[in-house]
Order: sequence, then structure tokens, then C-alpha cells
Amino acid sequence: MKKAYILLAEGFETIEALTPLDVLVRSGVEVRTIAIGSGYDVRSAQGVAVMADGVLSTTDLSDGSALILPGGYPGYENLGKSSEVLRWVSEYYNSGKVVAAICGAPTVLALAGVGHGKEITAHTSVVGELSDYQVSDADVVCSGELITGKGAGLSLPFAFAVAEALTSAEVIEDVKGKMEL
Amino acid sequence: MKKAYILLAEGFETIEALTPLDVLVRSGVEVRTIAIGSGYDVRSAQGVAVMADGVLSTTDLSDGSALILPGGYPGYENLGKSSEVLRWVSEYYNSGKVVAAICGAPTVLALAGVGHGKEITAHTSVVGELSDYQVSDADVVCSGELITGKGAGLSLPFAFAVAEALTSAEVIEDVKGKMEL
Repeated sequence: MKKAYILLAEGFETIEALTPLDVLVRSGVEVRTIAIGSGYDVRSAQGVAVMADGVLSTTDLSDGSALILPGGYPGYENLGKSSEVLRWVSEYYNSGKVVAAICGAPTVLALAGVGHGKEITAHTSVVGELSDYQVSDADVVCSGELITGKGAGLSLPFAFAVAEALTSAEVIEDVKGKMEL
Repeated sequence: MKKAYILLAEGFETIEALTPLDVLVRSGVEVRTIAIGSGYDVRSAQGVAVMADGVLSTTDLSDGSALILPGGYPGYENLGKSSEVLRWVSEYYNSGKVVAAICGAPTVLALAGVGHGKEITAHTSVVGELSDYQVSDADVVCSGELITGKGAGLSLPFAFAVAEALTSAEVIEDVKGKMEL
């Protein structure tokens, strides 16, 4: 079974983090939520208190196949301020693993210095910080193993793109059916 | 500010509960998550541990304008087994307040004995339990203050329908824009 890690910082966007979790679990992927601060409890930008499965300082993420970076304010800024987060983003990207970022979180890719020149998408409000990329207006962009989504309203297609990268189109069709899509 | 309550039972569907929360908070509605069991901590069907804002046995929901019932297995069955939940569903419905249920949760409406004869939608797997209703194949159905959604993949349009019932089309257009829709 493949494993995906979702990084949770204070102020993460609720559905940008938890829609990928939902779809990945439904797709048969093991998902672990990892709080990047000192405690397991993290509060989303919309006030949801989530107890993460682990904390970054004591978790080795190297057995994962995908690293997921939700946006949300100030969640994405908190991700970008963490040298541990930037190190894992770089390690995943350079190992050819899936790195997925949505909304404001593509700025974390920039701070980690990965994927320069690639086509990505991101929230309109952060496009100015992404001059090292070809920023598209698309809802979701898959540039090899680099998957980006534009904003919270695109959480579901973003989640399906990540899940399909880890499983198959057949699995995703089955999952969509059970979700009444 | 209007207030909405989201009832969380063990095994609730992650995004069916938290997408309405996200959209409602973005729409300026106060949202409280209420655990229906004895503790504040509730685990979703996909394994997310959420700390609710309150517990049902000690919370008076009568100041709310909307009651939201997520599906998910066994979450919707747990909602239906709670006499307190059924009492609040009945009280909200009979007061002309918004009652919203998605996926398997429209069965809770049936158990509470509300809205018989109305058009609703629900997950394909529970349609057989809804013989007292006109069950539609639509993604989302608004029958007056009774709002139903078909399944997890329709969490976002379901959430927008609930939010629009509590605010206005203008608010929803603004929220959609910020979510990149």
C-alpha cells in the first residue's frame, strides 16, 4: 500500500487538506497527517481542530510516495517558514516522488527551490511570488510528479489528480462512483 | 450573525461535514461542530480525529438557523440511533429552520419523521429506506428549508446551497471567487 503525507500547519485550509485525505483513503492509499509544529493538535483557517497522526520533528517521511501541501492563510506561510518542510519538499521532488501543492502552497515549492521552469497553477493572490514558474490559469496542473491546484474550490479535482498519480484511472472511476460523481 | 450546527458522529464522512463548515465560515456564518457522543473527540470514516466545539448532551442548539447532518458510514447510522439528534431534527424542521442532510443522512430525516412527501436526494445505497419521500437523482435538492445532497462528491454544491439559504447569492458569488471558482 502506498503512503501519502499531508503536512498540517496552523491555519491550513480545511478542505484543501482533508479532501485529498478523503479521496486518497477511498483510493486505498495510506494517509498520515503530520503537524509541523510541536504539538499534534492543529487548527485550520476555518477553525477546525484536528489531531494529527504525527509531528514532523519526530516522523521520518522517507517511506512516503507523496507529500501534500495544503494552502490556507496563514497555513501556507507557516509551511514556507519551516526549514524541515522545505527539506522534505526538496527530498521528495528530487527522489521523483509526488509533490502536490494547492492555493498558496505552491509558494512553498518556490522557497524549497524545486521545479523551476515547470508549469504550475496557484491561487491568483500568490502568482506574483512564482516568477520562476510557468504559471497557468488551469484548475489543476500535473507536470510530471509535481501536481498543483488553484484554490479551495478545486480541492476535489486536485485530490483526484494526486490519487490517480498513486493508483490508476480505474481506481479513481470506482471512487468517483461511490462519491456519486 | 447566523449560526449553523454540524452534528458529528463517529464515522462521519470527512468532507461532507467539513466542506459545509468551510463554506459557511467563508460566508460569514458562525459554525459550531457538535459531537453527539460523550466526548469532544470524534473520528471520521476516513480516520480524521476532530475535536468538536461542543457535545450534544450539554449544548442547547435552539439559537441556530441551520442543522447539518453529514453522511458517512457508520456516521449516518449513529446519527439515526440518537434520540437527541432526532428530537433536534424535528425541532429545527418544525420551526422552519434549515435542515440539511447528505449521502446516507437523509435516512435520519425519515427516522425523525420530517418532510414526508417532499422531494429529496440521497446516496443510491439508501434510497430503499426513503419510501416516504420523492427521491430525485439530482446532485442537490432544496425543498424549502430542507436541503439534501447525494454524496461526498457533491459536498461543495451542497455546502453552497446551505450557505446561500443562510446568506445571499451575492455572498456566495464572492466566496466562490475567493475559492477560485
